Amino acid sequence: MSKEICMQRALELANKAKGRTSPNPMVGAVIVKGYRIISEGYHKKAGTPHAEIVALKKAGNKAKDATMFVTLEPCCHTDKRTPPCTKAIIASGIKKVIIATNDPNPKVSGKGIKELRKAGIETEVGILRSEAKHLNESYNKFIIKKKPFVVLKIAQSLDGKIATAKGESKWITGKTARKHVHQLRNDLDAVLVGIGTVMKDDPSLDCRLRGGRDPYRIIVDSGLRIPLKSKVLGYSDNKTIIATTNKASKRKISQINTLGAKVLVIKSKSGMVNLKALMKELGKLDITGVMIEGGSSIASSAISSEIVDRVMFFVAPKIIGGTDSISSIGGKSPSLLGNAIKLKNLRAITIGDDILIEGYL
Amino acid sequence: MSKEICMQRALELANKAKGRTSPNPMVGAVIVKGYRIISEGYHKKAGTPHAEIVALKKAGNKAKDATMFVTLEPCCHTDKRTPPCTKAIIASGIKKVIIATNDPNPKVSGKGIKELRKAGIETEVGILRSEAKHLNESYNKFIIKKKPFVVLKIAQSLDGKIATAKGESKWITGKTARKHVHQLRNDLDAVLVGIGTVMKDDPSLDCRLRGGRDPYRIIVDSGLRIPLKSKVLGYSDNKTIIATTNKASKRKISQINTLGAKVLVIKSKSGMVNLKALMKELGKLDITGVMIEGGSSIASSAISSEIVDRVMFFVAPKIIGGTDSISSIGGKSPSLLGNAIKLKNLRAITIGDDILIEGYL
Repeated sequence: MSKEICMQRALELANKAKGRTSPNPMVGAVIVKGYRIISEGYHKKAGTPHAEIVALKKAGNKAKDATMFVTLEPCCHTDKRTPPCTKAIIASGIKKVIIATNDPNPKVSGKGIKELRKAGIETEVGILRSEAKHLNESYNKFIIKKKPFVVLKIAQSLDGKIATAKGESKWITGKTARKHVHQLRNDLDAVLVGIGTVMKDDPSLDCRLRGGRDPYRIIVDSGLRIPLKSKVLGYSDNKTIIATTNKASKRKISQINTLGAKVLVIKSKSGMVNLKALMKELGKLDITGVMIEGGSSIASSAISSEIVDRVMFFVAPKIIGGTDSISSIGGKSPSLLGNAIKLKNLRAITIGDDILIEGYL
Repeated sequence: MSKEICMQRALELANKAKGRTSPNPMVGAVIVKGYRIISEGYHKKAGTPHAEIVALKKAGNKAKDATMFVTLEPCCHTDKRTPPCTKAIIASGIKKVIIATNDPNPKVSGKGIKELRKAGIETEVGILRSEAKHLNESYNKFIIKKKPFVVLKIAQSLDGKIATAKGESKWITGKTARKHVHQLRNDLDAVLVGIGTVMKDDPSLDCRLRGGRDPYRIIVDSGLRIPLKSKVLGYSDNKTIIATTNKASKRKISQINTLGAKVLVIKSKSGMVNLKALMKELGKLDITGVMIEGGSSIASSAISSEIVDRVMFFVAPKIIGGTDSISSIGGKSPSLLGNAIKLKNLRAITIGDDILIEGYL
């Protein structure tokens, strides 16, 4: 069994906990002895044992002289709910630890590896590094910047329209793409929309997958216009957050609080919620990843506020046309083409009848 | 050697004549004996010998009892510059003919095969049929409908914009995509733009590839506003066509004629050139394929006139944004989303830093 195959399996295990470990990373570990995997583990949920500990427990005495594959550098810090993994690895008699990537957490980064080496354990870092980094892109940003990783999701026609002039937008993309979006709602901590979307569609913003987990619902609503009967205010899970400005009426704030939703009064930027400031507040709430789901003006504000890390454009096999149809990204034209936002690592894949184009800012 | 490999080679040969055989199809042929290709040929240019004849001449007496692979059903009609290929194949002693696809030309379709069979030659049809059909998609439409196959080419940002509000559009896509467009200008008989593009950019509409062939240049100019100094009027190859309506001044028409360009007065539709009628006229000129290169309003007119067969959207890794930027497809919004134009067989491929999304209407 090649190192890549073992690490691939560890990544697969890590991936099982998507949307469950926040604000911790997803981590998987396998212990290999004599060309066979003797035990596996992954970090299931924040506060529960780490992947390494789960795998070591299952291996028991067999861990002696074995090799551990782990998708992230084992932790060595003590200011958290679970004891450091480095200590447990050293105590187990593991001979070699193969790590996909360093933990960007400054409390760990490099120190975990150093501690293992000091104890005489051979280490190797970098097997499937980019896959491992991609897996935890939300955590990686959050742990350094204390702000969520932001994904801007758009469902548009090939010619960049998200609705007809009359506002009809259901459904541009197909079933498979929509299912993919529900998967993203499960994976990321929060979903964010503008008040326009709430007024027009009254969405539930839930995750409709079997066994799926509802994300935080964040509504950007500068004037606190949200109708009290909105579906997003009907949840009792304390996961609805309304971001507003000091224009908001105190009375409405308390009414919304009574319904179980949180109101964040954020500093404003030309009368609108300052999205950069909002991201800082969401970071304080341990929200590591946010998906912005539209519409046109929140998408353009997000881009011009420089909060977007990744874009996901689901492109339907349709041409809507019309200078009066609604463009996927609103706002104002840049004065020069050179001021357009450049995307990196653009790639296109087929999702059902649609094409998903992804890229990074 | 499998049949597919032999046919693949024949297709490769056919493809060498891209942009050279119109209004005839591209055709390639290989003659195989004892598992070896003994001769090859392709149709180089309208009026010159067909692929089968070229290959048979090279094979000489060796053609006896050999197998011929040909990308299109051999012709059997006599009302053209070259004698029928069926007769030559029969005379050569070829034992078996393997054909990729039928000739849609009603003068041939099925009759060529019938004639070969009648002469005791074994035939097989359908090896790499879809590749062979795709190769001659312009010819296939033209020969049945007497109208050109129309490709709508757009270069846009990911959010469907082709220019900033101020009209800056150079260059949205990268060098590789632009080279691809010059290849298309070589391959298709004609390129078509609206007068807006001529007024704004004064393009040459030439093919800037080494050994490339300039296409016909078609300008849709309902009011015949074209400046006499436009680059497209500076050619002496009789390949510039200005399509106008009866609003055009007779004096300007004769001035343009003097410059060596052709003016077609087409019936109008709400004061604009009726594009469907224009396509009929272009068909009469033996133009089998047209690439529409923009801008926004000609693209939307082309789509709503139902003349477009295939779309090619080159999508740049950029977000331009802005409700006031110029959308790739202009015109009016459909009243219902269900009235959006549906595309078939959408596929995305990477072209340099850009993504090309292609589909059929």
